[in-house]
Amino acid sequence: MRLFRMLHTTANRRHHPDTATRPGRVGRWRLATFACWLVLLACLQTVHAEDGYDLWLRYAPLETQAAAGYRERLGHLVAPATNATQRAARDELVRGIGGLLGKAPAQADSVDGAGALLVGTPSSSPAIGRLGLELDALGDEGYLIRTVDIGGNAATVVAANSDTGALYGAFHLLRLLQSRQPIDALDLRESPKVRLRVLNHWDDLNRHVERGYSGQSIWDWHRLPDWLDPRYTDYARANASIGVNGTVLNNVNANAQILTAPYLEKVAALAGVMRPYGIRVYISARFSAPMEIGGLETADPLDPAVRRWWQAKADEIYAKVPDFGGFLVKANSEGQPGPQDFGRSHADGANMLAEVLAPHGGIVMWRAFVYSDEEPDDRHKQAYTEFVPHDGEFRDNVLVQVKNGAIDFQPREPFHPLFGAMPKTPLMMEFQITKEYLGFATHLVYLGPMYEEVLRADTHAKGPGSTVAKVVDGSLDGHTLSGIAGVANIGSDRNWSGSHFDQANWYVFGRMAWDPSLEARAIADEWVRMTFTNDPAFVEPVVEMMMASHQAAVDYMTPLGLHHLMGRGHHYGPAPWVEGGPRADWTSVYFHRATKEGIGFDRTTSGSDAVSQYAPPVAEVFNDPARVPEDFLLWFHHRPWTSRVASGRTLWDELVHRYSRGVGAVARMRDTWAGLDRHVDPERHHQVERFLAIQQQEAQWWRDASIAYFQTFSGLPLPEGEAPPPESLEYYKSLEFPHAPGDTQ
Amino acid sequence: MRLFRMLHTTANRRHHPDTATRPGRVGRWRLATFACWLVLLACLQTVHAEDGYDLWLRYAPLETQAAAGYRERLGHLVAPATNATQRAARDELVRGIGGLLGKAPAQADSVDGAGALLVGTPSSSPAIGRLGLELDALGDEGYLIRTVDIGGNAATVVAANSDTGALYGAFHLLRLLQSRQPIDALDLRESPKVRLRVLNHWDDLNRHVERGYSGQSIWDWHRLPDWLDPRYTDYARANASIGVNGTVLNNVNANAQILTAPYLEKVAALAGVMRPYGIRVYISARFSAPMEIGGLETADPLDPAVRRWWQAKADEIYAKVPDFGGFLVKANSEGQPGPQDFGRSHADGANMLAEVLAPHGGIVMWRAFVYSDEEPDDRHKQAYTEFVPHDGEFRDNVLVQVKNGAIDFQPREPFHPLFGAMPKTPLMMEFQITKEYLGFATHLVYLGPMYEEVLRADTHAKGPGSTVAKVVDGSLDGHTLSGIAGVANIGSDRNWSGSHFDQANWYVFGRMAWDPSLEARAIADEWVRMTFTNDPAFVEPVVEMMMASHQAAVDYMTPLGLHHLMGRGHHYGPAPWVEGGPRADWTSVYFHRATKEGIGFDRTTSGSDAVSQYAPPVAEVFNDPARVPEDFLLWFHHRPWTSRVASGRTLWDELVHRYSRGVGAVARMRDTWAGLDRHVDPERHHQVERFLAIQQQEAQWWRDASIAYFQTFSGLPLPEGEAPPPESLEYYKSLEFPHAPGDTQ
Repeated sequence: MRLFRMLHTTANRRHHPDTATRPGRVGRWRLATFACWLVLLACLQTVHAEDGYDLWLRYAPLETQAAAGYRERLGHLVAPATNATQRAARDELVRGIGGLLGKAPAQADSVDGAGALLVGTPSSSPAIGRLGLELDALGDEGYLIRTVDIGGNAATVVAANSDTGALYGAFHLLRLLQSRQPIDALDLRESPKVRLRVLNHWDDLNRHVERGYSGQSIWDWHRLPDWLDPRYTDYARANASIGVNGTVLNNVNANAQILTAPYLEKVAALAGVMRPYGIRVYISARFSAPMEIGGLETADPLDPAVRRWWQAKADEIYAKVPDFGGFLVKANSEGQPGPQDFGRSHADGANMLAEVLAPHGGIVMWRAFVYSDEEPDDRHKQAYTEFVPHDGEFRDNVLVQVKNGAIDFQPREPFHPLFGAMPKTPLMMEFQITKEYLGFATHLVYLGPMYEEVLRADTHAKGPGSTVAKVVDGSLDGHTLSGIAGVANIGSDRNWSGSHFDQANWYVFGRMAWDPSLEARAIADEWVRMTFTNDPAFVEPVVEMMMASHQAAVDYMTPLGLHHLMGRGHHYGPAPWVEGGPRADWTSVYFHRATKEGIGFDRTTSGSDAVSQYAPPVAEVFNDPARVPEDFLLWFHHRPWTSRVASGRTLWDELVHRYSRGVGAVARMRDTWAGLDRHVDPERHHQVERFLAIQQQEAQWWRDASIAYFQTFSGLPLPEGEAPPPESLEYYKSLEFPHAPGDTQ
Repeated sequence: MRLFRMLHTTANRRHHPDTATRPGRVGRWRLATFACWLVLLACLQTVHAEDGYDLWLRYAPLETQAAAGYRERLGHLVAPATNATQRAARDELVRGIGGLLGKAPAQADSVDGAGALLVGTPSSSPAIGRLGLELDALGDEGYLIRTVDIGGNAATVVAANSDTGALYGAFHLLRLLQSRQPIDALDLRESPKVRLRVLNHWDDLNRHVERGYSGQSIWDWHRLPDWLDPRYTDYARANASIGVNGTVLNNVNANAQILTAPYLEKVAALAGVMRPYGIRVYISARFSAPMEIGGLETADPLDPAVRRWWQAKADEIYAKVPDFGGFLVKANSEGQPGPQDFGRSHADGANMLAEVLAPHGGIVMWRAFVYSDEEPDDRHKQAYTEFVPHDGEFRDNVLVQVKNGAIDFQPREPFHPLFGAMPKTPLMMEFQITKEYLGFATHLVYLGPMYEEVLRADTHAKGPGSTVAKVVDGSLDGHTLSGIAGVANIGSDRNWSGSHFDQANWYVFGRMAWDPSLEARAIADEWVRMTFTNDPAFVEPVVEMMMASHQAAVDYMTPLGLHHLMGRGHHYGPAPWVEGGPRADWTSVYFHRATKEGIGFDRTTSGSDAVSQYAPPVAEVFNDPARVPEDFLLWFHHRPWTSRVASGRTLWDELVHRYSRGVGAVARMRDTWAGLDRHVDPERHHQVERFLAIQQQEAQWWRDASIAYFQTFSGLPLPEGEAPPPESLEYYKSLEFPHAPGDTQ
């Protein structure tokens, strides 16, 4: 039986869990012996192909000694399995403990001596009920993990108020094992600080993924609802393991078709896969759907017929998906239809949808990523200008979803001025997990430090300490509705995210959405241990590499606060020379404003005055070239090429220095990785090595093309020891990438 | 060592072979024992996840007894490994024999007692040279496999004139083991009967695959040439294992970009992966490329500047890809540019390209799939009308590539009248492997019987026995240049072909391209054994199911010779009501011609006279409603609803009967499969079961929608016991599939 369980676990690691409790195979294993699985244990690392599909849920066997210690504590499992969520928790523990310890816990109906693991709720597990644990404060999704004494024997209990909470606790316990934490005296209490932790899939119904760099959409719409790819279940498992509890299935540039009956059947089928894992499905709603699929003359949110259409549509959806989450809406932005097309406000539009969803418990996530079609004086200011006047007008089941920065997922942006500026409205954070402006999937860029920087930024909205995190988790303004969204980097590629290290960005998003106060470094550390190995000789240098990777990308792409200099449309590679076209604020020159004298976008009080959208203490710092963080210098200031920066260098010399510093950092990442081959399976090591080689080439390309271009303005020589660009500016300008992935269709 | 090899083999089965001979791991296995690998052997079927990635090269362990018998014969391997092709053969034998027998052969420099396996050429292997084998007749790609006596010991020799021939022989030997054939007294000689055995990928540069139902293109153009996905190597292995020796990388609806320098670098990188496996790469050339990327005013094939441009382009390509295969061209067809745009003929266009390729040994595959933009009296006749007059005008390195039938890859078509009608021109067969008109990847339809039917059809061009196969292999008209092309069904899906059974269509294409005289049933049998199991309790019913599957699809989609009744554009599902639009011959009504009186396209001598494009003995049969095969009745004849067919039924009753017969056949396939779960891993069994459920639903839909529609013409009641369509005709007409996969972009 032991061998059977372990092998089974191994098989399931590369498989969908439906087979985990398949009967009938046991017989095959009668003859298997304890000795055999020890040997197998030694073999598995080689037998098991590491293609990244298992993500951070590999459950690779621990060293014998560590395993033995844990095994004493986890000998038998007392967990209910009367519904799908309870079975998901039990199956995950069987799979995980079986894989990690080489021996799955025996499943028992009650505590039987030492080494019991109890999982459940007071109502689902009498044994847990008898413990009389204090669970009220944990809420719906929280859990506790505690070492308790039962009849003189130490037992481990994972308890919650809901089956979903218990599932989260089960994953937490497994994480402790995966990262070699002691479990002898546990006393953990966890509950999410943010209520809605949602992935946004920018997936089109033809499986194209806007800004997707990891293959097609994982949603095989054509074969739904009849074929449920086992991958959907593994997607749900991975998200539950990090606390993600919502998924918006389709692109914010939405197609109304998804609201038709045949597609709602498909949505319902996916909801059925997600439900046991505590994940609600949401839909991006096209505001003009009543006209496109409803046959109405208008989509005016104040038109009674329009409201009736949406009400009927909401009723139809909830009849098929009782726990449907709600709508995400991109309105009056980049050509998408919206209430302003009918002379109504964002609040009018959002509230109309909120009212039809409210009776069903649904919510509206209304995006603030808007900028007027008329050429603005500063695109940076538009969302604030449009939304702040409506603070207080939104219904209580509406969240306004705000990107982390005011422009558009640039390598680095100051926090969005809306945070702290709409105290009467729950503001939902929108991070990007996919790396549209950060080298696609081929560049190793860990986004944890960037998320952390934004969440910890102080808005000063209610005095010092009014961090963005407190705005988002609702604590600053006393909102009970709160949320964080991440634009997913998940696709049909075998490794889900297009590269092995981009899995870490999915992971860190989920962990920080659960608790915005977690540290990027600590999360990187646990991810590396779960995904690769606990060997410090590997963990330490890789975590260092990850932590330095974001600054490296900022340096070789857009140092000192430069932004939006990527290729037009596809955003692949450097193109600071982009100008012309339909809109000034879709060009590079609009953003860098380089002249013979200097460079940078003057957003100070004497410029566009965007700084004044921030609270005074923040505005003063951003407004002052001597005090503004240097990484935002040219974001807020137009500075002379010859002006001095903190290093004592001139701006021009510092710019060149930082481009080169970024390239150098990538070269060091390559060296670090090359030296770690002993610790990684050859398959993953090889791909990461090749991708780092591509990243180094492209970092060099960014540096050379940018310097060649900006030098035509500065007219200054390169600093001592800086190599000139190997090609002419014309060469860099001549490069075209008509088929770069992820472009808008 | 034994354990190490076997595990390694196992790991490599799910991996790219580059790691097969990775050093340094041996140490880990020092302690491994003989006992252990025996146990492991028993475990592996469960440990190894069956997701279809391994195709027919799974090399799953044989039963102990069978393995022991083979092991005596294959104890040590004497094979050179001085170049990449030799290493590919050796690595495949190590992987294959290791996996099948649980023990890889020892690698030796010379024969050492019994059980030697010699692989190579007289020049690469002195031991083989000494055997003085008769190899001349084998040609470049042929091989022999023979049991010989060396110093009193029986040895197995795989000998060829080229390393590629030896590689083909190695795969053949492995196939013998995989299908449990005796190898004690081998005397096999094989050489391909067709020279060019080529896959056509209708893959766009943005990774969309036209008529692709298995994900995206496997070519990750954006990351090429720097990232070589291990999947490319497995693609090459799979093709070499069935003798495919060429691949056209891009869509015949071609984008000129692939001829630019950056893309040629990517093409060269892929050619480097294919080369060791005997596979040449080809490009679909856009005829107007000189204007689109060459800056010329014209693409007139007789214009000196145009010829110079193509000459320079050919030289550029061969500088990067010395063994480049040549161009495939779709010209003056469905909007593609071609010589007729400049008042020139197909021969002018083909010859111009042929002349620039000839010095490099390249060839041109010029497609005959053309039909005039002016509404034709019968599209069936157009290719013949356009091409026959040019017979004899094409250069000797040009092949004219002809689809198997005159319309367009319909479920069943009579052979194309061009076969036999252009004796002075090598005609290349174009089969479709992807199932554009045959239910996409979800329908289980084995194409072997359809290929066989076409290849064995008798053109009577030179009297009885002038089969299409003899036209294609060049033997009928004495051409040394010959070829068969297959439009690939390969994509980024984990299982390559979108479904497990569609892998059989890739397989049977390759096997029949190698030898058009092979039987579909025999190929199905070997594929099932290699892909699933040798257990007769599984093999026999599954082969029966496969052999019956094509007729089933013909019955439920387009019985009695009906054709081209699928949804407009995407070709998904029934739409016999399609009419209007830009071209009559892009509608369904054009092809079925149903009226109150009858149905069918009159192509007889009193109709469009398409029959007269066939040789008289064939034309007579097709022209006679009493003699034409009933599956082609309505292809060639317009018949009254009340006329009688062979069964004694009226045409209307027979039509309904066949629709229902097709649905019934699918129901039986489902039952058969449901009863075979003991013989298949749960993962593959589950997916096939779900897909069969979808096929049954869609077969029923085809039957119901078609009957509802045609009954409006016949006005006749359904035969006794036939259930009426459950929905109204309006309902079936109302169904829309805007995002069905594979549509032309």
